[in-house]
Amino acid sequence: MERALQLAASPGVPLRPNPRVGCVVIAPDGTIAGEGYHHGAGTPHAEIEALKDAGDRARSGVAVVTLEPCNHTGRTGPCTEALIDAGVAKVVVAQRDPNPIAGGGLEALAAAGVEVEHGLLVDDARALNPAWTFAHENGRPFVTWKFASTLDGRSAARDGTSRWVSSLPARRDTHALRALCDTMLIGTNTVEVDDPHLTVRDADDQLLADQPLRVVMGERDLDPERRVFDDAAETVQLRTHSPLEALTTLYRDYDRHHVFFEGGPTLAARFLKAGLVDEVVTYVAPLLLGAGKSAVGGLGIHTLSMAMRLEITDVAVIGEGSEANVRLRLTRFQGAHLDTSAEPGGA
Amino acid sequence: MERALQLAASPGVPLRPNPRVGCVVIAPDGTIAGEGYHHGAGTPHAEIEALKDAGDRARSGVAVVTLEPCNHTGRTGPCTEALIDAGVAKVVVAQRDPNPIAGGGLEALAAAGVEVEHGLLVDDARALNPAWTFAHENGRPFVTWKFASTLDGRSAARDGTSRWVSSLPARRDTHALRALCDTMLIGTNTVEVDDPHLTVRDADDQLLADQPLRVVMGERDLDPERRVFDDAAETVQLRTHSPLEALTTLYRDYDRHHVFFEGGPTLAARFLKAGLVDEVVTYVAPLLLGAGKSAVGGLGIHTLSMAMRLEITDVAVIGEGSEANVRLRLTRFQGAHLDTSAEPGGA
Repeated sequence: MERALQLAASPGVPLRPNPRVGCVVIAPDGTIAGEGYHHGAGTPHAEIEALKDAGDRARSGVAVVTLEPCNHTGRTGPCTEALIDAGVAKVVVAQRDPNPIAGGGLEALAAAGVEVEHGLLVDDARALNPAWTFAHENGRPFVTWKFASTLDGRSAARDGTSRWVSSLPARRDTHALRALCDTMLIGTNTVEVDDPHLTVRDADDQLLADQPLRVVMGERDLDPERRVFDDAAETVQLRTHSPLEALTTLYRDYDRHHVFFEGGPTLAARFLKAGLVDEVVTYVAPLLLGAGKSAVGGLGIHTLSMAMRLEITDVAVIGEGSEANVRLRLTRFQGAHLDTSAEPGGA
Repeated sequence: MERALQLAASPGVPLRPNPRVGCVVIAPDGTIAGEGYHHGAGTPHAEIEALKDAGDRARSGVAVVTLEPCNHTGRTGPCTEALIDAGVAKVVVAQRDPNPIAGGGLEALAAAGVEVEHGLLVDDARALNPAWTFAHENGRPFVTWKFASTLDGRSAARDGTSRWVSSLPARRDTHALRALCDTMLIGTNTVEVDDPHLTVRDADDQLLADQPLRVVMGERDLDPERRVFDDAAETVQLRTHSPLEALTTLYRDYDRHHVFFEGGPTLAARFLKAGLVDEVVTYVAPLLLGAGKSAVGGLGIHTLSMAMRLEITDVAVIGEGSEANVRLRLTRFQGAHLDTSAEPGGA
């Protein structure tokens, strides 16, 4: 299985839209008969490649796969059928397929008399495709909320100016993070106020060939001349104020697994209140404004003990000297509740 | 001079209230005749100790001192006189004495026919006593402004609760930083709202023997039962709203060199607008409130290009796991102005 995981993570395999999968076929004599991995959407699945590599030596052998073999016909035929046809005696799987459309592979194999087993190194297999796994398990994309603020928590000055709170290196870093997602999402208000382009550019400021989907959320009609509607990438407007509805639509109708959310304070508050922010990335700039727009609007929280609690996963300085910003990454809080008792050690 | 700097920084020498000073006396034959350093207020100066160590071998020799020898009689006699009496032919100094009361030593030595020289390794000598040097050069203490905030820049919730925004390890860290200063300063409003004790406690929550001066700034009469007025340390109320007046008084009348400023948003804004914040220490807690008090009140800044700009000098994670807070240290911005042009790399 370790070899299968290695194969899945082969260099050059795209992270999306398909999961990364590796497969090793072991001949009855215990030697490796064939290896394969999925090279990306539209290419043969890992099992098919490994079976082809193994040829006749797969018969009565064991197929070790990082992900449960698919049981449906997509752009390629079902892998379960190929495994049965090859006469494999046993299939060992790490992660079961969380995709309701493709699942059921192990049952189909067992029904055909193939011995099945699953769970081996399952955490490693899930980590190969975290957003894909999350989306299929939750029926919605994973949401990374990004915001920039000053040292005193302002995302824009009193007159609304927000270009640029973050330094150039921090903005470039944001583009690198956008490129890891399949969707970028903002609200109609941000389109009207900031008119962002919402594309991914490389370090030389050139548009990447592969652009995430641009999504604008909100019911308002927008000026089609806004930059977000240009030809640089696909754009969808979802006419809803409900974060859950928007995310469900993006999963169901657009096959989206990871949303990079850069909405303003009102929409951000809506996502937070709905419990639909899975990760936070914030860039803190060494500026003080003393007034202006906060990164997040009202959350209905009146007292400190009710504060939303996150957990810091990474702290990095992006840029140097006068361009240095601090990037914090945080996830949902996993531990106990905030202790607000009058402990020692305070003022 | 390097040896003299080493001597000045000998372990166990207190950082305040006196400067750390080292001295080496070189005999006419080029060998080291005597060494000395100042052990703290009320003890002999470095020159006196080194001359005593050298005895007769100081005659026609060279005294190398990290700081200009004093020319006044404090708790000890003037060092200039002692050097002249010892028959030293030359005095080499790193830093000139910025204290207007003690200065003029080199002129007195030259007038007595002693050869003088200064400036050698002056930066290293200044770094031995940064707050002391700053205070004497500027006629006011160095000011470190500390505040705690949530991820969205709130220092208290809507109902005013602020215990605790920071985690316990972050609060302990604050105590360690307070201990490096000779003064802690807050406003009358903080006394009324938060009733802090404003003392320094060690990791076992015990009061340190040596407490900084507690200073409350503001004209309002305060309840003497407030914790800041108890016997744990000395407390002074300065009845002014002017940061400059308060700081000048602390330097002139209380011989204070480093203020740890923990005032609320209104007073913090006053210090910032007056240009009287030299360093910022902020603890960012992984909390979101969506509403509540900001760390800093209005600065009269309307647009982003006018933002006060600082420079990050240090980023550290204080505490672990769910207790992790991020500490940022920043200083005045030294570089060029904020570039607000519509550069590439943005949204």
